Amino acid sequence: MQRVGLVGVTGYTGMELIRLLLGHPKLRLTQVTSRKESGRTLQQIYPFLQGTKLAELVIVVPDAASLALDCDVVFLAVPHGTAMEIAAELLAKGVRVIDLSADFRLHNQETYEAWYQVTHSQPALLSQAVYGLPELYAKEIASADLVANPGCYPTSAILALYPALHYGLVLADDLVIDSKSGTTGAGRKASVGTLFCEVSDNFRAYNLGKHRHTPEIEQELSLSAGRDITLSFSTHLLPMNRGILTTAYAKIAPGIDPLEIRAHYEAFYADKKWVRVLPEGILSETRWVRGTNFCDLGLVVDPRTNRLIVVSAIDNLCRGASGQAVANANLMLGMGEETGLPFAALMP
Amino acid sequence: MQRVGLVGVTGYTGMELIRLLLGHPKLRLTQVTSRKESGRTLQQIYPFLQGTKLAELVIVVPDAASLALDCDVVFLAVPHGTAMEIAAELLAKGVRVIDLSADFRLHNQETYEAWYQVTHSQPALLSQAVYGLPELYAKEIASADLVANPGCYPTSAILALYPALHYGLVLADDLVIDSKSGTTGAGRKASVGTLFCEVSDNFRAYNLGKHRHTPEIEQELSLSAGRDITLSFSTHLLPMNRGILTTAYAKIAPGIDPLEIRAHYEAFYADKKWVRVLPEGILSETRWVRGTNFCDLGLVVDPRTNRLIVVSAIDNLCRGASGQAVANANLMLGMGEETGLPFAALMP
Amino acid sequence: MQRVGLVGVTGYTGMELIRLLLGHPKLRLTQVTSRKESGRTLQQIYPFLQGTKLAELVIVVPDAASLALDCDVVFLAVPHGTAMEIAAELLAKGVRVIDLSADFRLHNQETYEAWYQVTHSQPALLSQAVYGLPELYAKEIASADLVANPGCYPTSAILALYPALHYGLVLADDLVIDSKSGTTGAGRKASVGTLFCEVSDNFRAYNLGKHRHTPEIEQELSLSAGRDITLSFSTHLLPMNRGILTTAYAKIAPGIDPLEIRAHYEAFYADKKWVRVLPEGILSETRWVRGTNFCDLGLVVDPRTNRLIVVSAIDNLCRGASGQAVANANLMLGMGEETGLPFAALMP
Amino acid sequence: MQRVGLVGVTGYTGMELIRLLLGHPKLRLTQVTSRKESGRTLQQIYPFLQGTKLAELVIVVPDAASLALDCDVVFLAVPHGTAMEIAAELLAKGVRVIDLSADFRLHNQETYEAWYQVTHSQPALLSQAVYGLPELYAKEIASADLVANPGCYPTSAILALYPALHYGLVLADDLVIDSKSGTTGAGRKASVGTLFCEVSDNFRAYNLGKHRHTPEIEQELSLSAGRDITLSFSTHLLPMNRGILTTAYAKIAPGIDPLEIRAHYEAFYADKKWVRVLPEGILSETRWVRGTNFCDLGLVVDPRTNRLIVVSAIDNLCRGASGQAVANANLMLGMGEETGLPFAALMP
Repeated sequence: MQRVGLVGVTGYTGMELIRLLLGHPKLRLTQVTSRKESGRTLQQIYPFLQGTKLAELVIVVPDAASLALDCDVVFLAVPHGTAMEIAAELLAKGVRVIDLSADFRLHNQETYEAWYQVTHSQPALLSQAVYGLPELYAKEIASADLVANPGCYPTSAILALYPALHYGLVLADDLVIDSKSGTTGAGRKASVGTLFCEVSDNFRAYNLGKHRHTPEIEQELSLSAGRDITLSFSTHLLPMNRGILTTAYAKIAPGIDPLEIRAHYEAFYADKKWVRVLPEGILSETRWVRGTNFCDLGLVVDPRTNRLIVVSAIDNLCRGASGQAVANANLMLGMGEETGLPFAALMP
Repeated sequence: MQRVGLVGVTGYTGMELIRLLLGHPKLRLTQVTSRKESGRTLQQIYPFLQGTKLAELVIVVPDAASLALDCDVVFLAVPHGTAMEIAAELLAKGVRVIDLSADFRLHNQETYEAWYQVTHSQPALLSQAVYGLPELYAKEIASADLVANPGCYPTSAILALYPALHYGLVLADDLVIDSKSGTTGAGRKASVGTLFCEVSDNFRAYNLGKHRHTPEIEQELSLSAGRDITLSFSTHLLPMNRGILTTAYAKIAPGIDPLEIRAHYEAFYADKKWVRVLPEGILSETRWVRGTNFCDLGLVVDPRTNRLIVVSAIDNLCRGASGQAVANANLMLGMGEETGLPFAALMP
Repeated sequence: MQRVGLVGVTGYTGMELIRLLLGHPKLRLTQVTSRKESGRTLQQIYPFLQGTKLAELVIVVPDAASLALDCDVVFLAVPHGTAMEIAAELLAKGVRVIDLSADFRLHNQETYEAWYQVTHSQPALLSQAVYGLPELYAKEIASADLVANPGCYPTSAILALYPALHYGLVLADDLVIDSKSGTTGAGRKASVGTLFCEVSDNFRAYNLGKHRHTPEIEQELSLSAGRDITLSFSTHLLPMNRGILTTAYAKIAPGIDPLEIRAHYEAFYADKKWVRVLPEGILSETRWVRGTNFCDLGLVVDPRTNRLIVVSAIDNLCRGASGQAVANANLMLGMGEETGLPFAALMP
Repeated sequence: MQRVGLVGVTGYTGMELIRLLLGHPKLRLTQVTSRKESGRTLQQIYPFLQGTKLAELVIVVPDAASLALDCDVVFLAVPHGTAMEIAAELLAKGVRVIDLSADFRLHNQETYEAWYQVTHSQPALLSQAVYGLPELYAKEIASADLVANPGCYPTSAILALYPALHYGLVLADDLVIDSKSGTTGAGRKASVGTLFCEVSDNFRAYNLGKHRHTPEIEQELSLSAGRDITLSFSTHLLPMNRGILTTAYAKIAPGIDPLEIRAHYEAFYADKKWVRVLPEGILSETRWVRGTNFCDLGLVVDPRTNRLIVVSAIDNLCRGASGQAVANANLMLGMGEETGLPFAALMP
């Protein structure tokens, strides 16, 4: 058993990590931290953990030295800005870190500071961090000390368009990414805007043109295309807990045979078991990936408009956060990427 | 009081018409028809009508002669294909018709037959029908005998982009319309795909590249732009009853000052009380129009991508169907367009 | 037009009052107050009011003297404890008051203080206040200066059992009232417990054995039965916005013919248009009363257990709060009780 | 690996069995049947199974001889009436059966026929069948050839009240059981009444006084109390997929110290890991058991009314059907009851 720690247990990604670690055969959660809840057991703050093997684990105040003693890898499930400080302390003590915040996702410090309106206190670590998308960087993740776990929206968007840009199937200068997310993506902080009665029976767009996940998507898709990409990325709030569906639009490049596009996607993801290219005529649904690490891709080639439309679905808490973090831990610790991760969606 | 009839009372648009007519000061519902439910009273099939003035109205089998005796205007809330036959009979008897189906929305018979896979039995009526979008055709509607009530998606999409194309603010050859609809849009027929447990806690795309509302949107936006438009129109199913949110993307035309776009929209809709151009920074939400005839437009000019994004929200059953039908009846019968239509959204 | 004021505009009952007043032909909203939002217009805090006649009304700091100048009746939509102070000030200035809080619902000061854990600062007003349930106290309401608008749960529970106890159809010492409420009942204050992701896809009981609406129900049903009643009242939280469904259980009294029970209910509510005794075999549904002032009663006489079960449905925001408040204002101002109140449920 | 078969794969309980078997280390699904879908693979009817080990399993027409060759135990997930025939055939061929329908739950043939309005064709098997509630009958289940898997509502109700009646803590003649269920309980058959738009944003009671699960609850609680019990059992439909919450009311028996009730419950369930008696002050929530086999019991002793109120929560598809069936299979095949069953709820 390898030992892992969790810094920040009170949010939805912390909760999801606990769910996944409860079923993991080779990772043992040895420390959980929260300033606010320190001294209480997990089952005291989460009654649904009564009767499980983690029920009596006592929450402690985060302390790098103590985490270093107890953990081989530490997950950071705290807000950006806070994460960079803790990450630096842990790395200095030789602990490997998987950061679920945005602090180390962008390679460019200026881009980070411009979009997040925060000064980065650990710029030296930016080049050291590996972007934790296993389909693209499995080898680098395996040997990394610091993994920047991807954002939820970017996971769905990058996997949707990466092969198309990589193979030059579509034009890189006319991308529209229209994403819709369940409300767990908004976090677990008390606020009027995310009250049940403000979200239920409603659908709305938000942060159009300025969502902070935009540069992360552009960074990876630019790497894919081999050129700088600027794209439209729009976010919407769904009246449901989990799930992101991204509908991505791209113009098919001149000279590309539309009938070959599917084969390219299937080839690109042939040995990636978490990405499922759905059969012709089948489009992704968020429920099909609920509670899993899958990213489902439905492909539509539209001859009328000469567009490729990719419909990508993930569970934002699992594949978009904690499940991907566990996959990264698996890779870092030399286990099979899929160890302990559920394959069966909770349906319906 | 003017007398109106309703052919097809068992679907959601029929139900919504009854709701609106219950509050209408100048329209009296004199006949409702359903082959399946004939002989029963409205409150027998809809217990929520007990205690209202329409509770005891007896449902009859549809009969053009009888409708002609009792009604000044008849609403058709029956499937496409069926509607064209009844419309022709009613018009022949001198009754004015508002058809909520798709049968008379497309001016071009071939386009209709290609997208709907039905032979049009009344092609002569196509040129006589007026497209019932009051913001565009109020005058023609007032004198029409046959009004083709617009589709729900097209209402949201056309109002979103009409001014931009009309004034040449955006390029006409690169439009992406990403729409999301509540499930009432799928009708009230028993089917596994629209069971509660198949829709709840789920979000999915459907009919990408081939939704039948596409040619209707293209027809009206082509008229707006003065040239033929082909566009991407995508539809998604929301786990909620009412509401459509459309996110429309267009490249800003060369030479256009992005700062003038809002002013053009405000000018175009200045005297249209049902279209609300929301203030800078405010984006549409489906709940804000729930139960009303409003179409809310949130405008985002994105300088990074040089795109105009319009977020358009309607209640698909009210503005997207029965409320618009009542507005059309108001116009046809010489009343104020807004007579009897609710201004206050049911919030939350 | 009569002039009304609203103290407390930022909660769900304030929002609902605005919806109802927008459609009211004889009440004009002349003042709205909120300490926090003063200086802003209604449409600035509620964008869905753009384009309505109340859009530009400016919110002010509550001031009894100013309210007295502008209003014939004032609605208080503020928390208990706060309401009693403002009510006293307004009454002292000759303004009639409808208090939507709990401050004046209980006739007995000690009971109030025991359940609400607050000292009542205006005990002299308790005897002056009329309990604003129109079916029981229409005459007293008409001449009242201070109306205590009933709680949402009590409205559903009292109307469900009043006739049974009044006519001695059931035993008074064995009542179980199991209620389920939509989440608007929990108010519009930021809190983790009522976040969307904590309420959605979940159902739970709360406050069993100690809900503050218990003494209010016991007070009115004791009056009905002519003896002191102690009963079990349980509350549950539904993952939906509006609606209360109460399932009330009572043992049929010896000597009562079960077949006569329905007739007694129909007689009791014969001239009460907001209470609908549903036909045999039809049970109440919350959607059937959505947005209306109806209280629907479904009656089940169970010969196996010798129990009467009454299923009562209301819209907690309309009939359970603001709609009932408008009905009370109508009565106080000498209009028909139903003036301006919607009869048509928003279905579905 | 033990081999299991599934007769009836197209409903929600079949779907849930597949989810659970995908994660089970010792049960291998060797045959799935459906008359309607025979010839197709599991992933063809359930695209969410793509990429799992069961994806390519081909559905066949049910045939007892073939099932007997391939399976040690067969799960029947078909409607009552149908199940009794298949069960008899399988038993005759020496296959052990877990029947998820109601056909063998009631020991008394007349009671079955009266409530289900069906003639029982296999009355001889009724006495052979074991009621598959592991907390009560683990030993009998282990050696049974025919297990009658309990109904969902009865599972929640029996576990809620069994200890109270067993120890004589409450009166047996005054029980009220008010249950609320997610909509998966209504099955996966196309019908207008369970369409999304008929269930969403709504709450209603149904089948009051005549739900078929009543005699099943009465049978087991009568055994617990040692006397015949007649009780009120009411069912309601929740706008969510999974979960049952049962609120059970009982009068505390004379001479019982209310403070001892909790201890009795804790003792009764001390070695039953799937039943969690929640701490004082904590009430059950359906989400806390989502996807698991837990039954959570929240206890409230109300001194005002001298009542014990038990709030019981299960996942109706897992603990109330397929999870319980797997636990029964585990017992029958000599494995630990909990083998392969998830302990971690999908939260939120």
